[in-house]
Parts: sequence; C-alpha cells; structure tokens
Amino acid sequence: MKINEEELLAKASKWGKIAPQYHAFYHGKVEVMPKCAIRDLQDFNIWYTPGVAQSCREIQKNSEAAFELTSKWNYVAVVSDGTRVLGLGDIGGLAGMPVMEGKALIFKYLGGVDAFPICLATKDPEEIIQAVKWIEPSFGGINLEDISVPKCFHVLDRLRKEMSIPVWHDDQQGTAAVILAGTINALKIVGKRLSEAQFTIIGAGAANTRTFYVLEAAGMNPKKVIITDSKGILNKNREDLKDTYKWDLAVKTNPEDREGGVKEAMEGSDIVIAASKPGPGVIKKEDVAVMADDAIVFACANPIPEIWPWEAKEAGAKIVATGRSDFPNQVNNSLVFPAIFRGALDVRAKTITDEMCIASASELAKHAEERGLSEEYILPSMEEWEVYPKQAVATGLKAIEQGIARKKISKAELLENAESIIKRTQDIVSLLMKQRLIKPLPPEDV
Amino acid sequence: MKINEEELLAKASKWGKIAPQYHAFYHGKVEVMPKCAIRDLQDFNIWYTPGVAQSCREIQKNSEAAFELTSKWNYVAVVSDGTRVLGLGDIGGLAGMPVMEGKALIFKYLGGVDAFPICLATKDPEEIIQAVKWIEPSFGGINLEDISVPKCFHVLDRLRKEMSIPVWHDDQQGTAAVILAGTINALKIVGKRLSEAQFTIIGAGAANTRTFYVLEAAGMNPKKVIITDSKGILNKNREDLKDTYKWDLAVKTNPEDREGGVKEAMEGSDIVIAASKPGPGVIKKEDVAVMADDAIVFACANPIPEIWPWEAKEAGAKIVATGRSDFPNQVNNSLVFPAIFRGALDVRAKTITDEMCIASASELAKHAEERGLSEEYILPSMEEWEVYPKQAVATGLKAIEQGIARKKISKAELLENAESIIKRTQDIVSLLMKQRLIKPLPPEDV
Repeated sequence: MKINEEELLAKASKWGKIAPQYHAFYHGKVEVMPKCAIRDLQDFNIWYTPGVAQSCREIQKNSEAAFELTSKWNYVAVVSDGTRVLGLGDIGGLAGMPVMEGKALIFKYLGGVDAFPICLATKDPEEIIQAVKWIEPSFGGINLEDISVPKCFHVLDRLRKEMSIPVWHDDQQGTAAVILAGTINALKIVGKRLSEAQFTIIGAGAANTRTFYVLEAAGMNPKKVIITDSKGILNKNREDLKDTYKWDLAVKTNPEDREGGVKEAMEGSDIVIAASKPGPGVIKKEDVAVMADDAIVFACANPIPEIWPWEAKEAGAKIVATGRSDFPNQVNNSLVFPAIFRGALDVRAKTITDEMCIASASELAKHAEERGLSEEYILPSMEEWEVYPKQAVATGLKAIEQGIARKKISKAELLENAESIIKRTQDIVSLLMKQRLIKPLPPEDV
Repeated sequence: MKINEEELLAKASKWGKIAPQYHAFYHGKVEVMPKCAIRDLQDFNIWYTPGVAQSCREIQKNSEAAFELTSKWNYVAVVSDGTRVLGLGDIGGLAGMPVMEGKALIFKYLGGVDAFPICLATKDPEEIIQAVKWIEPSFGGINLEDISVPKCFHVLDRLRKEMSIPVWHDDQQGTAAVILAGTINALKIVGKRLSEAQFTIIGAGAANTRTFYVLEAAGMNPKKVIITDSKGILNKNREDLKDTYKWDLAVKTNPEDREGGVKEAMEGSDIVIAASKPGPGVIKKEDVAVMADDAIVFACANPIPEIWPWEAKEAGAKIVATGRSDFPNQVNNSLVFPAIFRGALDVRAKTITDEMCIASASELAKHAEERGLSEEYILPSMEEWEVYPKQAVATGLKAIEQGIARKKISKAELLENAESIIKRTQDIVSLLMKQRLIKPLPPEDV
C-alpha cells in the first residue's frame, strides 16, 4: 500500500478541519454525571446533608474508607502545563485543554476510568509538583501529560516518591509499554531474542528515554543499544551531555563509543525505534539498507513517520510500525493507559511500577499473538476492546505480587470488574446516542 | 405540627445510618462521561490526535475559544480544605470528599453544571489561593465550600479580585441569597419594609456576616440591625472585636451600642436571623416574646434549629423558617447555587456580584409569591425546578447589565438554555435508572 504524501497530509488536515467545528458542536467532550439513584429530592438527605455527615465521619476515622464511600477510587487527574502538546510545542495549559479533555474521554471509554482534565496556569516544575500534591485527596491516580523535557522526568520522579497514589507520565511510560509490546511480537516474528537483538533508538526525548529503561528492565541488553539525539550518537565523548539526563544513557549504551549520525547508528541494527521529528526523510532508505537482515522499523513521529513504510520495506525492512491509524501496526498509547490505570485502580495500587508496565505490555503482545501474528499485525488495534480487561488483570496481579496493592482481589474478580465497568460506559454512550441525549454528529460540511 | 426532639433526632440519624451503606453501594456519587458522539474509534481522530491539534491552535490564537471548544464554560471546581465541614468542624480535605461530591451531584442535577470535587491537602489560606489559581485554566467557575472563618473571607476576596472567572463561597453567598429571598417574602406577608424593619442577627460566622452585607446591599438599614456572637451583642465597646472582621459589623450596626445577650438583641425586633449553633434552647420562648408583633424567625442551625418552630409560634412568632426539610419554609442553599452558576456560566460572567445574588434571590421570592405566599410558604421547595431557569435568567441578565458578561444573549435564549440543560440531566439520570445502568437502591436494611 503506497499512498503519496499529499494524500496523507490531506487526510490529517481533514481531521484538523472538522475537529474545531465538532468540538464547538458538542461544546466540549466530557461531562460530570450523577451515578447514584435519585428517586426524588428526598434522596439528597442521603447524598447530601444530613446523611452525608456520617460518610465524612467514617473517612475521618479511617482514611481508606474514602476509597469505598467516594469516587476517589476511580478519579484520575489528567494534569498538564501545556508545554509540549502533541507536535505544537509550548502552547500553555489553557490551549492544552482539548487534548486533556480528549484524554479523559479515552480514559473513560476504553478503561472505565473517571479522568478529569486539570490544566495548570504554571510551568514551573516545583509548582507543578506542589499543585498536584495539593489536589491529591480527590484522586486515585495522576496522569501527567504533555509536559516538556527535561522537567517531566523530575516531576514524575518526585511525585512517584512523594504521593501515595499512582502517578504516570503517559508520554514516557505509555509509549514505552506499547513499544515494548510491539517489540516483543516483532522479534518473535523474525526469530530474534530481546536480550540479543541490536537496538537503535533515534531521538532521546521523554518517550524514547523511558522506552530505553523499560526495555532494559524487560531484558534488552543496554550494551547492544545505540541512541541518537539531534546532535548525533550518544557516547561518552560528548561533553555536551554531561549534567543532563542523557549522560546516563550515554554511559549505559554504546560501549565502543560509536560516533556519527542516523546511518552510523543504524548500521547492523536488528530493530530501530524512532520517536524524533516528523518525516519523511528523517530516516532514509540507505539508513535502513545498512541494518541487519529482517530489520524492524518503528517510525513513530506524528503526523508523518520518520520514513514512509513502503520506503522502509523497499530498503529491506521486514516489519514497519508507525503512529498512524492508516498504516498497519499502529503504535498507540491508547492501547495501554486505560487498561493499566484500570488494573492499578482496581487493586488500589500505591504506584505503577515498571514491572506492572511490562506485565501489561506482555499481555498486549500475547493477545495479538493468540490472534495470529504477521508482519502487518504485531499489535492489537483499539477496536479489540477485550484486550483491555486482560491487561488490567495483568497489571493488578503484578501490583498484588509486588506488595503495593491496598486491596487483594482474585484474577476472576479483576477481570469481571474491568469488563463490566468498560462495557457499562460504552453501553451508556450508545444508549444516549440512540435516545439523542447525545446529539447526532452534524454532516461534515457544517 | 409538633414533633418531639427524639423523633427529629432519630430521623436525622436514620439518614446518617443508611448514608454510608448507600455511598458504598454506588462507590461514590458522580462520574465523568463522554458527551460527544462516538460512532466508532475512528472518531478519536477528531476528539484526540491528529484532529484535536487544530482546536488547540484556535485557543492558542484566541483564549476565549476555550469556552467554545472545551467544557471549560460549564466546569466548576468545588474546592474545600475540609476545615469547617457541616457541623463536623475541621475534618480535612479527604474526609470532606463525600460533601464535595454531593455538592457536585446537586450542581448537575438542579443546575446542569459540571462540578467536580477538588479537596485540598493544605489548610493554609495563601496555599488555598495559590492552588485555585493554578487550576484556573480548566474551569469556568469556582465554588468554595466548608472553609473555616475567618480565612474564608480573605480567600474569597483575594480570588474574586485575582481570577477572571466567578468565585463563590456558598456558605457565605448562597446562604445570604436564600435568606434574602425568604426575608423579602416574610416581610411582604406581615406588611413591613426591608428598609424599615428592625433586624436581629444571631451568630457572626461566614453565613450571617455575608447575609448582613447582602441584605444591606438589598436595602436593609444597618442602623436597624443588632448582631450577636457567642460573647454577646456586637458593639463599639467590645475591645475583643478590634482587628477582627467583626469590627466592621460592630461599627455599622447597633448605633446605640446596645449590650447584652440574645434576649436583649431580640427586644423589639421584627425579624431574627439565626445561624449560630444547634438548638433547641439557643433562642428561648421568652426571647421571641420580646420581639415586635408579627415576628419573623429564621432559625437555621442544623440538624436542630436554635428554637423549635412550635415554640417560636407559641411565643408569638408569625412566620418561622428553618434549615430542615421536615418543617415548612426550608432555608436551603440548593435553591440558589445551581441557578446562580447556571446564569453566570451561560453569559460567561467574570465574577458573581452581590447584585447578581440579589437579582436571583428576588426571582426566587417572586416565584413563591406568584404561587401564593402564606406563613408556611415563603420559599419554593427544590421540587419546583422551574424556578431554577428563572433565577438563572435573572442572574445572567444582571451580569450583562453590569458589563461583566463575556457573552450577551437574550432573555429567551438564557431561559431556553437553562431549561434544556437541566432537563437533559434529569432525563439522563431517569433513563439510566430505568435501564439499570444506575442500579436500583438497595432495600434500607442492607
């Protein structure tokens, strides 16, 4: 399947053209709804004063009761300062609202998670940390989103240490988990091992940095990794890397201190993972040509991958994955974050560990494997919604095993919880659409 | 209707007994739901990346577009530090969650407002102010709740000055508005004028202090007001009041520097407004006996009013109002805040002025008057939901008149907006209950 660049750009710009019209038509994307019965207004005596006081007293006596008597167990704040929104750069918290609200929509529709957009009026890392800590009582989890590098590392690390609920930076961990799942299956198809494969990582931003650490935790050998940033291959001769987060990458990888650019980095590589800047042409055909046999290419930049899939194939790649839904093998965080949070929330995990990510990614990979892997099918698509409860179960069980779950529940119960809560959301949306309580979408020429 | 104290306390404690069970049954009270059509997952290309980027760009160009393209226009944060929750005192943010979530429930059910509970992990006034300012981008309004005196005055004043969205402290302004409405009608029944009536205000906390200022703005003569706190009548001889917020009250009222307690304060009074501490016996029959003819008594303490209604009547009161739903004339903030926010949000007001409160209270009073005032009917009940859109209209029109509305819309359009958004919420809840997507309430002996 070869499509020309104009067509693909046109397609992306078509979504861009109708999006603001549709956003204005619904005047936003998520709303707050009662979820308890209201038979008549006398029920407010239970849900509000005087009855509610007793629920407060129980939480005052035992703070864990907040997970039973309120929605805290399922509330996740989608927090952003808007400093690195999609490919738009630093547009600020307010302009980031459509993305954070969209994230909340996906959280609920695919994971049954009650996520709420919290866009911040500060960009200072210490203030972001403080803001999130102050709002902790309301939430069962925090999803950081679109916060720029390098502060996103510090903000995530501090909050993970200092909060007693899971804190997640989707651009880091979500991306890492889905790439791990794709990597597992792609390597399986070509008959190579994670611990033996030679990796090239193009780009050293938030996504690729965390991907490196998660792949390492999953069994990748860091000595068999070459990483590049915009200035070339990371190595221990690069003085500019000292005192930056990249220094640790430079030290751990590239034992021979290889130098050069993308081509030198890809020489002999089994698998390249790129999350750098929109292509095409960031990776060239001749770069792919110097890779090992049965090469695997993840070209994840949006909206245009670093290299067109057909170019990569022509140059010898066996498997190509991109961030786009109109090519095979879409690498999409939405395959991961709703399910990982579902599992973490259902066992009331105190954090989300790399091991929980890996367990979830393995389950994602396994689901695709069970359906039959091929060069054009290394990852499930979002439509295969039965994979979400399975990932939630894997995440929850790992948290219990690691002793960070406040609540121990059985595998069967975890599965039943996750399935029913996700199904209920989708049933409600479809019912409200049918009853026109969610208006039908206008024709595309509005 | 004379009920004994045990029965009433039993009734209140019955709600308290079932409330935690019911809260646990639903696992909280409000949830986040998609409100836009999702025909299939391809629609995420519009609601999320790549299409959403264009909505972000439009807000980046023009920040007001956030009110069109996101749910900001209808999001209200219910913010509390939990320092003065109901009659429970300082129980902290987490234990306050059931109240804040209940408030969010009422906001949506009666006002169509998407309110979300934000319980804070700090009690420091400057930090509360900072936290609220940092989360401003997500919200169209802020409802402060259950924050202790005196910091609540400072927090409200500062936030009203420093934010460009409405900030409201319901314990102050909501209470003041509903008491004003009741006062207008009660005085009408006894044929007295607001500007001429002699007032006694028992208690000088958040509610009564703001009630004083709002009644003053509505036409009450401060020279005809006597206020008490727990130490007696406020007057200019009270050294303990200097450097407190009460000094302004002491200076403005009680020109003869009357001294004494509740009885001395009520001598010759046409109307007493009490919001002090749970009774009975805080106001005695002999205190009411020294009031003027056709006396009006607002005994608003919960769960037991400062004086039983029948005692007040026996002592000569003509009209008695309380905070309870099981006596006539319930003084209930829920009659006010959903509607005032509806109106303020629909015109995108930058603040909520006292004049907007007064306009809304007048409309509330007028609605009861049109239905026929009596000694036992000075205020509508929550069931009369058609009063909410009318109050919203009055609030919105006043904001437009005062030049603080970002959006100018007609009276007819305001009414239609408010009616349809409130009705839609109630329709959805009833549909979800019918389809058992909201489970039926368990029997009361669960």
